[in-house]
Amino acid sequence: MRNSAAAYEALTRRFHRLSVLDQVGGILHWDHAVIMPEGAAEARAEQVATLDVLGHELMTAPDMADLLAAAEGAPLEEWPAANLALMRRRHAHATAVPADLVEARSKACSACEIAWRQARKESDFAAVRPYLEEVVRLTREMAAVKAEALGLTPYDALLDSYDPGNRADLIDPIFTDLAGFLPGLLDDVLAVQASEPPLQRPQGPFPIDSQAALGRRLMQVVGFDFNRGRLDVSLHPFCGGAADDIRITTRYDEADFTQSLMGVLHETGHALYELGLPVQPWRHQPIGVARGMTVHESQSLLIEMQACRSRAFLEFAAPLIRQAFAVDGPAYTVDGLQRLYTRVSRSFIRVDADEVTYPLHVILRYRLERAIVAGDLAVADLPGAWNDGMRGLLGVTPPDDRRGCLQDIHWFDGAIGYFPTYTLGAMMAAQLFAAATQQDDDILPGIARGDFAPLVAWLRANVHAHGSRYSADELLTRATGAPLGTGAFKTHLHRRYLGK
Amino acid sequence: MRNSAAAYEALTRRFHRLSVLDQVGGILHWDHAVIMPEGAAEARAEQVATLDVLGHELMTAPDMADLLAAAEGAPLEEWPAANLALMRRRHAHATAVPADLVEARSKACSACEIAWRQARKESDFAAVRPYLEEVVRLTREMAAVKAEALGLTPYDALLDSYDPGNRADLIDPIFTDLAGFLPGLLDDVLAVQASEPPLQRPQGPFPIDSQAALGRRLMQVVGFDFNRGRLDVSLHPFCGGAADDIRITTRYDEADFTQSLMGVLHETGHALYELGLPVQPWRHQPIGVARGMTVHESQSLLIEMQACRSRAFLEFAAPLIRQAFAVDGPAYTVDGLQRLYTRVSRSFIRVDADEVTYPLHVILRYRLERAIVAGDLAVADLPGAWNDGMRGLLGVTPPDDRRGCLQDIHWFDGAIGYFPTYTLGAMMAAQLFAAATQQDDDILPGIARGDFAPLVAWLRANVHAHGSRYSADELLTRATGAPLGTGAFKTHLHRRYLGK
Repeated sequence: MRNSAAAYEALTRRFHRLSVLDQVGGILHWDHAVIMPEGAAEARAEQVATLDVLGHELMTAPDMADLLAAAEGAPLEEWPAANLALMRRRHAHATAVPADLVEARSKACSACEIAWRQARKESDFAAVRPYLEEVVRLTREMAAVKAEALGLTPYDALLDSYDPGNRADLIDPIFTDLAGFLPGLLDDVLAVQASEPPLQRPQGPFPIDSQAALGRRLMQVVGFDFNRGRLDVSLHPFCGGAADDIRITTRYDEADFTQSLMGVLHETGHALYELGLPVQPWRHQPIGVARGMTVHESQSLLIEMQACRSRAFLEFAAPLIRQAFAVDGPAYTVDGLQRLYTRVSRSFIRVDADEVTYPLHVILRYRLERAIVAGDLAVADLPGAWNDGMRGLLGVTPPDDRRGCLQDIHWFDGAIGYFPTYTLGAMMAAQLFAAATQQDDDILPGIARGDFAPLVAWLRANVHAHGSRYSADELLTRATGAPLGTGAFKTHLHRRYLGK
Repeated sequence: MRNSAAAYEALTRRFHRLSVLDQVGGILHWDHAVIMPEGAAEARAEQVATLDVLGHELMTAPDMADLLAAAEGAPLEEWPAANLALMRRRHAHATAVPADLVEARSKACSACEIAWRQARKESDFAAVRPYLEEVVRLTREMAAVKAEALGLTPYDALLDSYDPGNRADLIDPIFTDLAGFLPGLLDDVLAVQASEPPLQRPQGPFPIDSQAALGRRLMQVVGFDFNRGRLDVSLHPFCGGAADDIRITTRYDEADFTQSLMGVLHETGHALYELGLPVQPWRHQPIGVARGMTVHESQSLLIEMQACRSRAFLEFAAPLIRQAFAVDGPAYTVDGLQRLYTRVSRSFIRVDADEVTYPLHVILRYRLERAIVAGDLAVADLPGAWNDGMRGLLGVTPPDDRRGCLQDIHWFDGAIGYFPTYTLGAMMAAQLFAAATQQDDDILPGIARGDFAPLVAWLRANVHAHGSRYSADELLTRATGAPLGTGAFKTHLHRRYLGK
C-alpha cells in the first residue's frame, strides 16, 4: 500500500522531468528554425523523436495509473490538488490513443504536410486530397477514442488538447454573435475608410539592421527581458525556447517594416506570458504552464492589437520609427501610421487579415472543421464549401484554392480544433484590456509615455502568475468579473474603427 | 535464457539512444556557449543535468551487465565484435564509480572552478588551494576505484577516460625523448630567429566581419561543409554540435587577425574528423565515435600546424589575407606571414605557446599530475614544483601564479590525465602528415594551390572512417607503418625552424 503523499511527490518528480525534457525540445525546435544547417535535418529529426519517445515512456509508464490513483487520497492544499487534477488530464490524453494510431497519424500528417507545400504552390487541391483524407480519417479515429476516454464529444476532445477546458458549447454563441455582427460593421468601416483621402504607405528600403534595432527597442519598452530571452529571424515567426530563455522570432521585409514590427510586438505578448508564469516549485509542474492557446493568444493580441495599435502607443512610437529609419513625411505621422495599422479590407488570406475581418476567417474554418469531424463534410467537398463560406461571411470568392482552402498549414499538418483559439483570444484580449484599464488608471497614460510597467504588472497578477490554476473562463471571470463574451471586443471595434 | 544475437541487438538500441542524447547535449552545450541569454544559466544547467541522469540511468540499468554477458556468445563479425568490446569498456567506466562519489566530485569541481576564476584573476593560489585539495582527494579516490575495476594503474584509469587505451607506459619514453631534445633545439631556433631582422607585425584594426569572411573562405578551402556545420563566436573556441551539424567557434580580436585565423583552421581539423566518422549503421554506436583525445588533437594539429602553417599554404593564403583586409606591405608577404606564424619564444602561457615549446609546457603538467595522483606531490607544494619545472624545461620562472600553476582550467575543473593528449596529438599529426605526403604525391601541391581534397581523402580513408575501430596506436601503425614516436615531429621541427 503506497502512501498517498509519497505517490503525489513521486508524480511531481516525474512531471518535473517531463517538463525539463520539453524545455530541451523547445531549444532544439528554436535551433531548427533559426540556426541549424540544412544537412542536419535528418539527424535533428531523430533527436526530437528520441526526446518524444522518452517523454511518452515516462508518461505512460506502467505504474503511472497506480500512482495517480494512490495520490487521490493525499491531503493536498489548493495548488497541489489542482496540479494533481492536471496530471490526471495529461495522463488521460497521453494514454487515450493507442501507440500505433499515434504513429500512423504522425506519419500521415508528415506526408500530407509535404504534399501540401507543393499543392499550395500550384493551387492543386486534387494533389493533396488523398493525403488530407487520410489525415482526416485518422484524426476522426483519434477524436473518437479520446472522446470515449475523456467523456467528451469528438470535436471537444480535439479542442481540449490545444485548449484545456474549451468546448464547442462555449464557442458557438460567441461565433454566432460575431457572424451576425461583423459583416454589417465591416460595411460601415469600409464606407468610412473609402471616404478618406488615399493612404500614404511608407516607402522603403528599410535596412534590416534598423528594423531589428527598432524591434528590440520597442520590445524593451513593452517589458521584454533580454537577460532571459532573444529576438531572432525565422521563416515562420514564433515564440519558443525554454524557461528563463524565451526566444521570439520574426522575418524582415526590406520594403515594409510595418508588418514585422507588429509581428515582433505580437510575439512579445506571448513571451511576456511565458516569462511571467509561476516560478518554483510550480515551474516544472502541469499547473505552472500557460493555460492553453486561447489565453496565450489573448496575451499576444492584447499587446499587439489592444496596446500597440492604439493611438496612444503610436504617438509614443512614431518619433522612434522616424528616427530609426531617418524618414519623415505623411506616412510616418501618428495619423499616417494609425490609418495604416487600422486599415480594413475584404481579403482572402487569414494571416494578412485585419482585426475586423479576422474572426470571419476563423469562423469559416471552425464551421468547416466541425463538419469534417462530424462526418458531415467530405474532404472532396472542401474547396466548394470554403468558397461558399467566404462569400457568405466576407462577400468575396477566392480566385483559386491557393488563396482558398489551401492557404493554411493547420489541417494538412493534423491541427484540427485549433483555429477557434485565435478569435477567442481576440475576445479575451479585449475583455482583459478593458478591465485592466478600468481597474488601473495609469495603464493607458503609461502606454502613451512608453511605460508598460502598469499594464504588465496587471497582467502578471491577473493572468500570468496563475499558470494553469484556473480554466480560461474562471481566470477571465476572476480578472474581469464575467466569463468570455463579445461585448468588450465589439466596443473596442466601434471605438477604434467608427469613433463611437 | 536470452539469445546472444538478440542481446547484442538490444545493446545497440540502447547505445544508439545514448548517443542521440549525447548529440542533444552537444547542441545544448553549443547554445550555452554561443547563444543563450545569461539569465537562463540555472534552467540550462538543469536541462543538461537531466540529460546526464537519463544517460546514466540507461547505461547503468540493472540488466545491462546481463545483456553484455549474454551478447558474449553472439557470432559477430569484426566491427560488431569490436563494438561490443567498446560497449563493455563504456559500461565499466560508468559503473566503476559509486554514484555518491560521482556527485561529490562533480560538486567539488564546480566549486573549485568558480574559486579558480577569482584566484587566477588575483594570482592567489592560497584562495583556491582548499578547493583543489578536495578535487584532488576525490579524483584520487575515483582513480583508485576505476583502477580496481578496470585493472589499470590509477593514473592510467584517468587517462583512459579521455583517451581510451592510452597508458603512461606509452607516454613516458616519448616525453623523456622530447624533454631531452627540445631544450637544445629551442636554443638553436632562438639563436637563428634572433639573428634575423626585426619582425613586422600586421597592424589593425581588422574588421570582425572581414575576419569572419576570411575564416569561412579558408574553412571551405580546407574542406569544411557548411551544409553540415557552422562557424560562430564564443569566449573559448571549441568544436561541438551534433552529427551532420558540426559547429566550431572562435573569438575575434580587432587588433590581430592572425591568432583567430589559425584557431579557426585548428577547429576545422577537429570538425573534419567529426564530419568524416562512420555513417550508419555505426554512427550512434561506440565504434562510430572519434577515437579519443590524442587522435582528435592530431587532426586539428595536422590541419593547423602541418598544413596551414606551411610555406606552401601561406603562399596560397597570403593574397587572400591581403585582399580580405585591403592591406599590403612586408607584414603580409609570404615571408612576413611565415615568420610570424613560426615565431618561437620562452613564454609562460601554454595556450599562447608556439609549436616548439608547447610540448615542454605539457611535459611539466604531465609530471606534476602524475606526482599528484601518486600522492607524491601535495597541492600545497604545487606552485613551487611548477616554477622549478618551468626553470628546468623552459629556462624561465613565472613572475606569479597567474602566469604559473593557475593559468589552466583543467585541474581545477577535475580534468587530471588530459594534458598529455595535446603533445601526443602533435606527434601523431607529424607522423600522419609525413606518411600522407609520402603516400600521395598530390597532397603537398594540393595544399599549395588551395585544394585540400587529396589530403582530406587520405585522412578520411586512414583515420576518420575508422571511428573507434582501432586503438590510437593500431590506427597509426596501419596508416604510417609504425607506432607513435617522436621521429616525424623532430624532422618536422628541424626542417621548419632550422631549414634542415
